[in-house]
Amino acid sequence: MTRHLALGILAALAVASAAGAQTKKTGPLVIKEQGSFFVGGENKTVTQAAAGPIPAQTGDITVNQMYVQYQIPVKGAQHVPVVMVHGCCLSSKTWETTPDGRTGWSEYFVRRDRSVYLADQVSRARSGFDPTAFSDVRQGKTPAGQMPNILDASHQVAWTVFRFGPRYGEAFPDGQFPIQAVDELYKQMIPDLNSTLPNNPNPTWTQMAALAAKLKGAVLMGHSESGFFPEQAALIDPSGVRGIISIEMPCPSMTGAQVAALAKIPALFMFGDHLNDVTGGPANWQQSFTSCTALVDQLKKAGGDAEMMHLPALGIRGNSHMLMQDRNSDQLADLVIAWIDKHVEARNRGTR
Amino acid sequence: MTRHLALGILAALAVASAAGAQTKKTGPLVIKEQGSFFVGGENKTVTQAAAGPIPAQTGDITVNQMYVQYQIPVKGAQHVPVVMVHGCCLSSKTWETTPDGRTGWSEYFVRRDRSVYLADQVSRARSGFDPTAFSDVRQGKTPAGQMPNILDASHQVAWTVFRFGPRYGEAFPDGQFPIQAVDELYKQMIPDLNSTLPNNPNPTWTQMAALAAKLKGAVLMGHSESGFFPEQAALIDPSGVRGIISIEMPCPSMTGAQVAALAKIPALFMFGDHLNDVTGGPANWQQSFTSCTALVDQLKKAGGDAEMMHLPALGIRGNSHMLMQDRNSDQLADLVIAWIDKHVEARNRGTR
Repeated sequence: MTRHLALGILAALAVASAAGAQTKKTGPLVIKEQGSFFVGGENKTVTQAAAGPIPAQTGDITVNQMYVQYQIPVKGAQHVPVVMVHGCCLSSKTWETTPDGRTGWSEYFVRRDRSVYLADQVSRARSGFDPTAFSDVRQGKTPAGQMPNILDASHQVAWTVFRFGPRYGEAFPDGQFPIQAVDELYKQMIPDLNSTLPNNPNPTWTQMAALAAKLKGAVLMGHSESGFFPEQAALIDPSGVRGIISIEMPCPSMTGAQVAALAKIPALFMFGDHLNDVTGGPANWQQSFTSCTALVDQLKKAGGDAEMMHLPALGIRGNSHMLMQDRNSDQLADLVIAWIDKHVEARNRGTR
Repeated sequence: MTRHLALGILAALAVASAAGAQTKKTGPLVIKEQGSFFVGGENKTVTQAAAGPIPAQTGDITVNQMYVQYQIPVKGAQHVPVVMVHGCCLSSKTWETTPDGRTGWSEYFVRRDRSVYLADQVSRARSGFDPTAFSDVRQGKTPAGQMPNILDASHQVAWTVFRFGPRYGEAFPDGQFPIQAVDELYKQMIPDLNSTLPNNPNPTWTQMAALAAKLKGAVLMGHSESGFFPEQAALIDPSGVRGIISIEMPCPSMTGAQVAALAKIPALFMFGDHLNDVTGGPANWQQSFTSCTALVDQLKKAGGDAEMMHLPALGIRGNSHMLMQDRNSDQLADLVIAWIDKHVEARNRGTR
């Protein structure tokens, strides 16, 4: 055996060992395919006055497109893909490396052999936004007071709304959020331009439904502002929506027809701890929890497979609103994956 | 030999073959480490009136942070990392899957064993932006005319400025841009909020220099609007900047001291074709080319290792301004990598 051949076999075994270790938290990650693309998008004709180096122009821009970044692991075809959509004042960074530098849910799910699709909400981050309402104000076409509001959550608002503690600067003693790294979360918080979007449907709902259909089946996951987006997407076009995961948001009232439509899709609702332990902020998490518990009951009565996963009821304490970044985020990801295996994949077995 | 062992060895050989194929364009990609983080960012205290579900508040937001997404291949430590920064009205999507669905430069460089760091410019995409100037106008604190201009390039402007053809809708017969997929490029074009940034230094320059230092050495690559950012970063702190790659932008006048500082770093300037074949637009590429040719001469006279790579001079015809997305993007990536190998890595050999 030559030295090169020996080294080659050693390398082969090392890589094979790494490939067998896809479900481990560290070590090389083998990606079958990765990339990015857009879903949707439409032309809009604009007229802009001269500004900066660009002369006055009339032309077309593209609006309402949704940017999607994905990774397919080697065994990805064995499982239903998962689409993750972030919440208010955040981007897909939500699901990546945690503020304290641990593996985020996006990579963790890939290491658990799931294809993961991260979507920046329409009007946020790499999806861009329609700037014409701002240009119109700048050019005097519309009054300043009619300019869309740009929502930018302060550190103080985040601390209490995300339930890091009862008051800014004071953390819950049993809190799971890596509070020593909270400054890194603050860097993730970016302006929210959803006020520039057409309402009902929000284009993100439409593009999520289209993405699920394009993937020929996907689990849609939303969080906070986007927590109910999977349901909204399914109400537009359920054809690709194999499962719904809604994390920490209010559940709106649904008509009987809407409940009947949603009851056809397995749904998981997830809430953390301390729902009632922060007072006076703009969010009322206890009320959100109650509204979703009521919806779960409605879905069950309609024959649906719906589950309220309230973490403290499972003996898991201290989780914040940013539970995918909490110190026990791997444990919570395992719970979500186990739910998908049992409620989505067992149900679809043989049909994929 | 048991059946399981035999299968294991077959799998090992298959994966080893894949691992050995890192420089191939397809097949599994083995990532040693990936993730995302922010560079820089500072507190800003704001006072906002009540808006939407958020009550009136005074608090802190984080501004000027730069989002960075990275992949380190298994052999990444053998090479200098490459930082890629996109141009005007675009995001890091620039370097990912091309409009016609081929592998982008970011993955191609990883497959060529380079660690790649994609940065969204400060005030763009996942880096967020400082929204206070807009809020001030909305609340009547400042006049509408003082609102920062949001730059959004139209399809028409992109067609000619990016040199797809002499007039909108008319492509150069030898053009390398995958013009049938131009709509996918339009979806990548998002509002540019650089007008909200402090000038001189633009925080992106500062964060790029800090990123290079954090990486203990990196090649900085910029394109178009960010084409001269690597030089600006090096003028702030050259300690981590091992090489500069400037693609298609005007080169500003430099003082003798600036030329002397930049001459210490190997620099590649790259321009495509048809520089003088589009008239009447806001960009004058022939002038940009001339200004950078002059700078290359200055750098050489100061003892620097600077190169003007004008693709038509190498017999490579038809490249657009978006040359990293052109049909021959792999070939151009190979040219860049060969330049890094010869001018940056050979120079630094033994020091890493």
